[in-house]
Amino acid sequence: METPVALLGGTGKLGPGLAMRFARAGVAVVIGSRDAERGAAAAEEVRAKLSAVAPDAAAVEGTDNLDAARRGGIAVVTVPFEGQAALLPELAEALRGKVVVSTGVPLRFEDGVGPVHVEVAEGSAAQQAAALLPGARVVAAFHSVSSAELKRLAHDVAGDVIVTGDDAGAKQVTMELARLLPGARAVDGGPLRCARYSEHLTVLLLVVNGIYRTHAGVMLTNLPPASGG
Amino acid sequence: METPVALLGGTGKLGPGLAMRFARAGVAVVIGSRDAERGAAAAEEVRAKLSAVAPDAAAVEGTDNLDAARRGGIAVVTVPFEGQAALLPELAEALRGKVVVSTGVPLRFEDGVGPVHVEVAEGSAAQQAAALLPGARVVAAFHSVSSAELKRLAHDVAGDVIVTGDDAGAKQVTMELARLLPGARAVDGGPLRCARYSEHLTVLLLVVNGIYRTHAGVMLTNLPPASGG
Repeated sequence: METPVALLGGTGKLGPGLAMRFARAGVAVVIGSRDAERGAAAAEEVRAKLSAVAPDAAAVEGTDNLDAARRGGIAVVTVPFEGQAALLPELAEALRGKVVVSTGVPLRFEDGVGPVHVEVAEGSAAQQAAALLPGARVVAAFHSVSSAELKRLAHDVAGDVIVTGDDAGAKQVTMELARLLPGARAVDGGPLRCARYSEHLTVLLLVVNGIYRTHAGVMLTNLPPASGG
Repeated sequence: METPVALLGGTGKLGPGLAMRFARAGVAVVIGSRDAERGAAAAEEVRAKLSAVAPDAAAVEGTDNLDAARRGGIAVVTVPFEGQAALLPELAEALRGKVVVSTGVPLRFEDGVGPVHVEVAEGSAAQQAAALLPGARVVAAFHSVSSAELKRLAHDVAGDVIVTGDDAGAKQVTMELARLLPGARAVDGGPLRCARYSEHLTVLLLVVNGIYRTHAGVMLTNLPPASGG
């Protein structure tokens, strides 16, 4: 795995959670933000939270998105879906040839209705990312991992990370990344066209969260024992 | 729960599996088919398989779809999605006011691609069923339950049954029905508009089945202990 892992738009909900877990597992992280200072501040906060529980964690730095994209061996797009069309084109050159993990879920919150999926012309957030990043090795993952659960460092992340993509090597790298989350299993969910099903599943999980007041994850049953890990 | 449970188009893959599990749990079943004799033959087969393991199982009868719809206290639509638009209109009168459970998944198998979802104008197979059955209390469930697993009577059904619907009472009845499957947990998946996410999840499970050579199911994590059952 080529490190550091760049977390693009990493100052939001998912970015700091993944940063903590990756760094704690010994993988260096660069948090990218629109503003380099905000990126640095987010990294500082992550380091502070980690210092108490994992003094030997890997480096966590913060910078702007373009610098993070350039430095990252792998990039994880953690900007909300509605922000990716504005962000990704300016990073395309820096991300060419790299493994790029799409985590976005195209959804909106409708008054009196709740979370509703948004149709994406390309089929999914991941396919849109692939269209915006020519030459990047785009994979989709981490849709159903709760940011709140990631930040509860004393707890395992209960659930599977469903990984979809068309580049077998990029998928392997992403599955290794997923296995850095303690308790998580990486599941091959097929080609990138299937990212849409995993993204939509997250909309369902958000509805379930509202009903049961929880942060639900997902786990597939009946997989062969050797499959995940 | 008003019985018997009518399994409409119940001679296919899902119908006989549900029939075995419901009857074994003490709930009478009527299998409906386009042809009354095929319905009777399917019922005979289910009874034969049950007699060895569950001599005290509830009654399993077979008939045509209209008769099954009339006799059923609850109806489960187990015809493949592509057949429901032709079947349901002629059953609408018989099903008015009843709990009707949609299990259909709108998908096609594309050569060299695999299972692909099919867009439904109404949003989902369940919403199409609701449009075709005015006055019926339509709920969606059982999408991710493997027919193969249902038929392995010695085994529990590992996984959740995600139930979506707009009629709270109908949803409760369907969740009770789901709990008849040993090992299964019933999960409230929100309103009927969310059926689409559960249907699409099944397309993903079919892709996963191809990769891992299994019959995968799904289980939500982090639900409060008292929730399912």
